[in-house]
Amino acid sequence: MIEYRNLKIAVLGAGAVGAQVVRLLREHGDELAERAGAGLELIGVGVRNPDAPRTAEIPRELLTTDIEPLILGADVVIELMGGIEPAKSYILQALNSGADVISANKALIATHGPELFAAAEQVGAQLYYEAAVAGAIPIIRPLRDSLAGDRVKRILGIVNGTTNYILDRMDTDGQSLEDALASATALGYAEADPTADIEAYDAAQKAAILASLAFHTSVPLESVYREGITQITSEQMAAARDAGYVIKLLAICERLTDAAGVEGVSARVYPALVPRSHPLGAVREAKNAVFIEAESAGDLMFYGAGAGGPETASAVLGDLVSAARRHVIGGPGVAESTGANLPILPISGVTTRYQITLEVVDQPGVLSRIAALFSEHGVSVETLSQSVRSTGEDGAAATATLVVGTHEASEADLSATVDGLTHSDDVSCVTSVLRVEGL
Amino acid sequence: MIEYRNLKIAVLGAGAVGAQVVRLLREHGDELAERAGAGLELIGVGVRNPDAPRTAEIPRELLTTDIEPLILGADVVIELMGGIEPAKSYILQALNSGADVISANKALIATHGPELFAAAEQVGAQLYYEAAVAGAIPIIRPLRDSLAGDRVKRILGIVNGTTNYILDRMDTDGQSLEDALASATALGYAEADPTADIEAYDAAQKAAILASLAFHTSVPLESVYREGITQITSEQMAAARDAGYVIKLLAICERLTDAAGVEGVSARVYPALVPRSHPLGAVREAKNAVFIEAESAGDLMFYGAGAGGPETASAVLGDLVSAARRHVIGGPGVAESTGANLPILPISGVTTRYQITLEVVDQPGVLSRIAALFSEHGVSVETLSQSVRSTGEDGAAATATLVVGTHEASEADLSATVDGLTHSDDVSCVTSVLRVEGL
Repeated sequence: MIEYRNLKIAVLGAGAVGAQVVRLLREHGDELAERAGAGLELIGVGVRNPDAPRTAEIPRELLTTDIEPLILGADVVIELMGGIEPAKSYILQALNSGADVISANKALIATHGPELFAAAEQVGAQLYYEAAVAGAIPIIRPLRDSLAGDRVKRILGIVNGTTNYILDRMDTDGQSLEDALASATALGYAEADPTADIEAYDAAQKAAILASLAFHTSVPLESVYREGITQITSEQMAAARDAGYVIKLLAICERLTDAAGVEGVSARVYPALVPRSHPLGAVREAKNAVFIEAESAGDLMFYGAGAGGPETASAVLGDLVSAARRHVIGGPGVAESTGANLPILPISGVTTRYQITLEVVDQPGVLSRIAALFSEHGVSVETLSQSVRSTGEDGAAATATLVVGTHEASEADLSATVDGLTHSDDVSCVTSVLRVEGL
Repeated sequence: MIEYRNLKIAVLGAGAVGAQVVRLLREHGDELAERAGAGLELIGVGVRNPDAPRTAEIPRELLTTDIEPLILGADVVIELMGGIEPAKSYILQALNSGADVISANKALIATHGPELFAAAEQVGAQLYYEAAVAGAIPIIRPLRDSLAGDRVKRILGIVNGTTNYILDRMDTDGQSLEDALASATALGYAEADPTADIEAYDAAQKAAILASLAFHTSVPLESVYREGITQITSEQMAAARDAGYVIKLLAICERLTDAAGVEGVSARVYPALVPRSHPLGAVREAKNAVFIEAESAGDLMFYGAGAGGPETASAVLGDLVSAARRHVIGGPGVAESTGANLPILPISGVTTRYQITLEVVDQPGVLSRIAALFSEHGVSVETLSQSVRSTGEDGAAATATLVVGTHEASEADLSATVDGLTHSDDVSCVTSVLRVEGL
């Protein structure tokens, strides 16, 4: 029997993830100790209400509402409470006392990351957060360490399981957004208030974290452009399918040079058309995946469960073993790398391809006038397909559906074009404007 | 301008990977130094022939054939020579001098890993080898660190790009093995002597490395069961496609309990049927992917380029930044974790599903006799489909093709069954025996 130095572990929060972390620590403690080279002694679990129901049983004597002494007695603090406060104060208190901290709190890392990383660096502690993005999927460590010798060009991430489930149901079963959301709620994928998911606030937090890591640049959450999936219709879904695409909510982090020649970083979240043959096109149900394009490594994809108690606990415990190994070895933690410090470019500087669906009056000259309108705004048309929708019986004007695919265009030029289309006498309705990604 | 401590880097070997590592180190040196927190000074590149052609230009004054002084002057030695000797002696020399070592040498790690890791541990140095398995794909670090708090149940890996390219061509274009191999050679995917790839020696090395890491158990290369792809026919490929499968060369690492109740580890490599809907079924061309089933994390997949100069160089440079950060921090390296020390189970103890294709004499009672033969050997039949092949004109006996899908069966029981089928008067030919994985 090897005798290990014992590390004192405090867990804050015993919800879906916290309860599973406690269970696994108690069930697999010896195994983890052997891998870490240190005993992992759970000294307590800080909770608001010791009598609340849990997904795994926690001995009553471990539970406490007296959180500060728990933090001050710990070598490693695992924060799984979520939310900004009091989580942030507790983490700062832990770091300032020299403890390493593990957190799955994406909202906190995305909004106050730089402050927390600075606090950690100052005392030589380490803040781990593998579980904050894409749940069980190792993505923080690959970006921070494995790709540290490469240049990331672009990340396309499906990082919100709820919306991927909803879009997958719409795509697969032809369900409406409302019905798909209802089944996501019934399955426990969506919360009672689904705003954070469907309006893409959650995905935007993850985009900020991924972009900061990938580009060694602090990317504030406010700079992430965000569109949710609430405007996506069954008709758009069906049309996408017919054209060989699937609509996915993507978190996109990109290093690019804008029209003015400024090299910078763009982080943005929106539903986009993805070719069905793209590896992301095959990511079904509530799964997550992060597709990375790097200068030397080429294309990489990381796929797995993006949420769930045991799944997220796996990532937390991986961080715990890393933290324990570091304690055994000694020395300060590795500082966050934000030395590149690139400018954050607004969405208006980003170029992508677009697919625009219009209802137009079916009469001579319309096509060329529409094409001219795109061209006037500097948007180059790649494909144009027209189908007659109504033949204009009973004296009504005949209408046609026009689907226009563009070459790369800037958001600014595209909005001006759409504005022009909306005011054109030839156009009765702009049905759908979607970006195309993954080409 | 920040002043960094300078780390002295020696590169051994300037082939496809080595030349790219040198190029990227010279082109992106400042960026890497900023991320590592240390200057990375390339002190020399050890080669056999300084005048050999390179894929990237290396200044003549960096090249040397005098390798020992180069190693002794380095803080980090990057070994990219390949082969067992002299690579092994050089690595031991480097580790014993206290230098960290980065290696992409899968043959060496698979055969002499334990000796090298022990040498590293003794002096507190670290041996990094992210590039040894699946090229650019981060897989060593996720297994070693991210999943360190979880229990890996099974790994299914497509870890040889050459054979994946060949099988993909056979599947997609209906090419014969010979034609597909010829195009792999023409494209530079296959070497002049393709034995290491098509006989799966290369994949077996990677299976040994992955199994050792995943199960914290030293898995010797000799214990890896190995079958190559040379017996795979266009007919098997077409039949697999019709049945919703694709044939992939899989490296399988599994934690299991054999029939005698012994819990252990199996590492094996063979071509197997994989459901087309499985994430591995979509891995095309020469790409690699590693699918991991973990107790808490669930299913994960890592996908990307498994070979190539710049791609593999990306993994090497990721290791270099990690090594440099460790030098800045100080303290010994993390020892390899082999504490679980599980027994290695032979292939005879492994159970999988099988699909067996037979030519049988088409006469009454054959089906029930065949079914009885499976049952006598303890193999349970799940599906059985028969199609008449020849109607027995001109006095010949009518024959039929029988495809039998089994439930999980042991290799031992299955071989006994196939032996029985071969000797049965009802069976004119056992056309194909393939394992089914990924269900």
